[in-house]
Amino acid sequence: MSTPRLLTVRPQPGDLTWTFGGVPPVARIAPGMALAVYTEDAFAGQVRSPTDRVSEVGTFPLLNPQTGPFYIEGAAPGDTLAVHLVSVEPARDWGVSSTIPLFGALTSSPTTATLQPPLPERTWIWELDRSRRTCRFRAQDSDFVIDLPMDPMHGTIGVAPAHGEVRSALVPDAHGGNMDTPEMRAGVTCFLGVNVPGALLSLGDGHARQGEGETCGVAVETAMRTTVLVELLKGISTPWPRLESDTHVMTAGSARPLEDAFRIAHLDLVRWLGRDYGLSALDAYQLITQAVESPVANICDTNYTAIAKMRKAWLPPATPYRGMHEQLREIGRQLR
Amino acid sequence: MSTPRLLTVRPQPGDLTWTFGGVPPVARIAPGMALAVYTEDAFAGQVRSPTDRVSEVGTFPLLNPQTGPFYIEGAAPGDTLAVHLVSVEPARDWGVSSTIPLFGALTSSPTTATLQPPLPERTWIWELDRSRRTCRFRAQDSDFVIDLPMDPMHGTIGVAPAHGEVRSALVPDAHGGNMDTPEMRAGVTCFLGVNVPGALLSLGDGHARQGEGETCGVAVETAMRTTVLVELLKGISTPWPRLESDTHVMTAGSARPLEDAFRIAHLDLVRWLGRDYGLSALDAYQLITQAVESPVANICDTNYTAIAKMRKAWLPPATPYRGMHEQLREIGRQLR
Amino acid sequence: MSTPRLLTVRPQPGDLTWTFGGVPPVARIAPGMALAVYTEDAFAGQVRSPTDRVSEVGTFPLLNPQTGPFYIEGAAPGDTLAVHLVSVEPARDWGVSSTIPLFGALTSSPTTATLQPPLPERTWIWELDRSRRTCRFRAQDSDFVIDLPMDPMHGTIGVAPAHGEVRSALVPDAHGGNMDTPEMRAGVTCFLGVNVPGALLSLGDGHARQGEGETCGVAVETAMRTTVLVELLKGISTPWPRLESDTHVMTAGSARPLEDAFRIAHLDLVRWLGRDYGLSALDAYQLITQAVESPVANICDTNYTAIAKMRKAWLPPATPYRGMHEQLREIGRQLR
Amino acid sequence: MSTPRLLTVRPQPGDLTWTFGGVPPVARIAPGMALAVYTEDAFAGQVRSPTDRVSEVGTFPLLNPQTGPFYIEGAAPGDTLAVHLVSVEPARDWGVSSTIPLFGALTSSPTTATLQPPLPERTWIWELDRSRRTCRFRAQDSDFVIDLPMDPMHGTIGVAPAHGEVRSALVPDAHGGNMDTPEMRAGVTCFLGVNVPGALLSLGDGHARQGEGETCGVAVETAMRTTVLVELLKGISTPWPRLESDTHVMTAGSARPLEDAFRIAHLDLVRWLGRDYGLSALDAYQLITQAVESPVANICDTNYTAIAKMRKAWLPPATPYRGMHEQLREIGRQLR
Repeated sequence: MSTPRLLTVRPQPGDLTWTFGGVPPVARIAPGMALAVYTEDAFAGQVRSPTDRVSEVGTFPLLNPQTGPFYIEGAAPGDTLAVHLVSVEPARDWGVSSTIPLFGALTSSPTTATLQPPLPERTWIWELDRSRRTCRFRAQDSDFVIDLPMDPMHGTIGVAPAHGEVRSALVPDAHGGNMDTPEMRAGVTCFLGVNVPGALLSLGDGHARQGEGETCGVAVETAMRTTVLVELLKGISTPWPRLESDTHVMTAGSARPLEDAFRIAHLDLVRWLGRDYGLSALDAYQLITQAVESPVANICDTNYTAIAKMRKAWLPPATPYRGMHEQLREIGRQLR
Repeated sequence: MSTPRLLTVRPQPGDLTWTFGGVPPVARIAPGMALAVYTEDAFAGQVRSPTDRVSEVGTFPLLNPQTGPFYIEGAAPGDTLAVHLVSVEPARDWGVSSTIPLFGALTSSPTTATLQPPLPERTWIWELDRSRRTCRFRAQDSDFVIDLPMDPMHGTIGVAPAHGEVRSALVPDAHGGNMDTPEMRAGVTCFLGVNVPGALLSLGDGHARQGEGETCGVAVETAMRTTVLVELLKGISTPWPRLESDTHVMTAGSARPLEDAFRIAHLDLVRWLGRDYGLSALDAYQLITQAVESPVANICDTNYTAIAKMRKAWLPPATPYRGMHEQLREIGRQLR
Repeated sequence: MSTPRLLTVRPQPGDLTWTFGGVPPVARIAPGMALAVYTEDAFAGQVRSPTDRVSEVGTFPLLNPQTGPFYIEGAAPGDTLAVHLVSVEPARDWGVSSTIPLFGALTSSPTTATLQPPLPERTWIWELDRSRRTCRFRAQDSDFVIDLPMDPMHGTIGVAPAHGEVRSALVPDAHGGNMDTPEMRAGVTCFLGVNVPGALLSLGDGHARQGEGETCGVAVETAMRTTVLVELLKGISTPWPRLESDTHVMTAGSARPLEDAFRIAHLDLVRWLGRDYGLSALDAYQLITQAVESPVANICDTNYTAIAKMRKAWLPPATPYRGMHEQLREIGRQLR
Repeated sequence: MSTPRLLTVRPQPGDLTWTFGGVPPVARIAPGMALAVYTEDAFAGQVRSPTDRVSEVGTFPLLNPQTGPFYIEGAAPGDTLAVHLVSVEPARDWGVSSTIPLFGALTSSPTTATLQPPLPERTWIWELDRSRRTCRFRAQDSDFVIDLPMDPMHGTIGVAPAHGEVRSALVPDAHGGNMDTPEMRAGVTCFLGVNVPGALLSLGDGHARQGEGETCGVAVETAMRTTVLVELLKGISTPWPRLESDTHVMTAGSARPLEDAFRIAHLDLVRWLGRDYGLSALDAYQLITQAVESPVANICDTNYTAIAKMRKAWLPPATPYRGMHEQLREIGRQLR
């Protein structure tokens, strides 16, 4: 095992991309390489104080900028890209969250359309203590202050969609994208089905931490320094994004209504347990019924995202995706 | 602190009830009393082997029998019932699960109505080892066997509904009922708003364990020996079921589509943090966005149920519901 | 053919009922009898001027009072009740509509729960000209006045639910109830499956007219003088409410989300075309795809209601429900 | 008034397009011009007999080919395109419909994902009699034959989406696209908001007729000869597709779940009545509640589409969109 080649990418503002698909690659990389990337926050760094308003400084749809896309040599439709998150570290000592008019789970929206006016627009700056690994919340209407554990993650990671589509980076779907699940943290391998030659991988939307569901629509948004290992699994398909950690296999379904996101994720888990673990569909259906964890990822984006999460110790012995997670995990340990 | 009075109830088959509301109480108890009850499994004990079929031995709607209802003296509309689960122990060394035609998350149903035939009907018997506290799954189409941790819980607990309604015990709603959340385990206090004089508390639907979402619609169903402490909080209202453990406060919303269940639970959590923890609505909205866990409870019942779960250590100091959980927890420790 | 026996019922305020199921019958009638009933408006006549507010004068849940229930002799579970609407005539020269806080399609609600405040509460009095058969709308914020055709209907008609349930009169479901479809007008026969001995028929919620979807949640509510013919079809089951007019057969599905209401109605239509018109399921599926009308009934109630409406001239010759609609239609013509 | 310039376009197979956005224009036209186009059927003419199967001859995603896009000179974001359908005439004496595996309202699908196998695949050929203007259905499992009125329409019409997105022609959304509403017939003007320079108008998916909801997912698909007049309204925005006929104004909302499509359409109608008819939001909300028709357009596509349809005679006098519909209607009459 040798240290992988490393490509370091720090995009300039003009290099950021706002869609999956539809933009030329910023670089070509070979499978097996590592990428050390800087990702801007979801507001492109434009919301920096409690008096900044997303609706004033953000230029919709210029939200959720991505670093990429990267062309992975040899990737072709029907293959699977394995993206192992080696490290995900905030690049600033602050993060930002806010209410955004008509965006979020506890407000009407352009699709759940009502005659009511939007909620007040409010911005919170969270202090990030990278040595203590905490995120400090300061209430605005009382003197409550609390430090929550830092748990950095990427809200958005994906490839170019199928069928010639180009999707806003705000959308999660079968190509990945804006899934906004806290499970997308360092140590995890994300498997994404390849739809176009080169796959065209992008990532962004770093969160210093996020609750499940991303209720108000905005996590603790911050710029990230992230290292990922990128591998290619030729001839293995992946219908919806799948994740593997040291302890769990996970699937991510994105759709509306939320029960359809749940159905996609849990049906894909049944199919994964069939293909790689040898369980029949009905046995897998029974087993996950008693064993799965089903955290909501987001209920604010264009599609909602649900996760199905299964403990590997409760499954038959297997090496899904040719043991790729363990291999990348080992290489990643050396990189850090 | 003295040991509470204890009422032991083991219903005969003819004593089981199948609705919330609409049936006379089996007993009257004073606030502060303990109930030691036996609850039958969701199939009234009629499905006992892999060759038994729910559709043959169960007599719909005679599913999900409840023990109760109990009339709590002094309970009146606008009050809150506190039900502390002291212990929840399987009464058998086996549990049962099954597919049921047109019931479950990964099948069409009478409401998500399609022209497709139902899935095959299949019954699994799980072996419960009460000393090792495991549930053994045996795959039917391969030789895979796995022991999962026992984690006993009640799928159903509730009071008579408001507005003169009577609801099937298969339904979860604002009155509680068939919420099917694994969070309803020993050590937890469940707060239920009282809708009718005496509240009319019932419980049942014991699960030796259950995954989140209860994907196929049927957990590891078993009879239970359960002890609960029942207290009354006069003059405190509770709009939707709330739970408190030693570490978390939780809310349960039940509705369709699933995003509405999520909205109900998370809005009720915002309101609870306002009433009992002094956070403004927008501050609470922001805090839970970054801190809440949002596990799906069930996505198979008449209404789907979603949970919002917040760590108490991350909230301002407070004694919600007059410190009732801590008090009952202490009494419960003595009882066990 | 002889004139049917007629029972005239004008309930006193204390006689009104607010649920389907759970109340004793006000009268017993024999199949074949006619009922001439007075029904109060959805606000029990308490909202009478533009300055009246539903939230002030209405006592929730005392909304949507019903006249009934009527015990139909001989009706047993598995039978079908045929209710032919001979005439539906406003009993007043005014109707009332209003916004109600957190009720309606274009506002958040207790289930589609948001942090936004409710819309302003506003009451409109509509003038009903029973000779010209018009309903006069007067805009409140401009001087626009328009006369719309009167098209009287009942928002609510139903029987006691199955499984021992009692449902608020605000709920539509398989038992009928608050379906709020403009198709429920004079000349139509409504078929309802019987769930309990005597069926326990009630009706109310007269609308001088209503758009499809009942967008704001409140139609032109008025008291009605209504004559119905009630017949019993022994041994014929009806899973969801069905309607027959001189020109169309219709099915009504009630559920959330709205696509499930659509699915229920259209699957039930496929099944009806199979049972009574001899079409295979796939042929019926194909034919309705090209021929059905699918008006939304309501998208404001506890369940949403969708209609599937098929022109009889486009179906094979048949006499569904033993030709009951034609028979009742003929008798009804004599009664008027 | 002079006869408009006419561009005739008959695309060769290689000229068909499968997305909105992402493809260069086939022609540039000036506002005011007429387009006489040939559109292929949704299967690109590849399904021609009852033994043809969509899953065998169609090459997904090469479904629903469009004719276009057309660059309209001067069109810029914020403007509105007015597309008046002068005539829509089947180009063949047959149309085709079919079940497609896991597509349609009464089956599970890739998003409403279940473990059930798909419905059988079946193809129906409908005979179109263009002189009698009928569509003949022949049942396959019985000898029933019926002629339904021909009512030609376009399932798909739209412009390039906003935010740099490219969407499959199977998707309906704010840019129009695959709305599948029978209201899109000759005599109607469709207003579409412009998102990109030149607007990039395409159309296709001709249906000899279609029921509301397009239940099985496939209408009576046929090639069309269609003439449209295209005009540009500078400085007038249109958030969602709007239609105007001689008698009605209509709005089309596309989303999931279906209630959100309904909300979008009815909120947009309220806003349209405000902008062009002078009604306050609450007065408009009240008026449409009593007066609107709400037919479902499709409940099978990636987004579902709902229509809100309001009779112009019931509105204050107004000339929405600068009277464009009447002008185009008059010009169209001369063209036919």
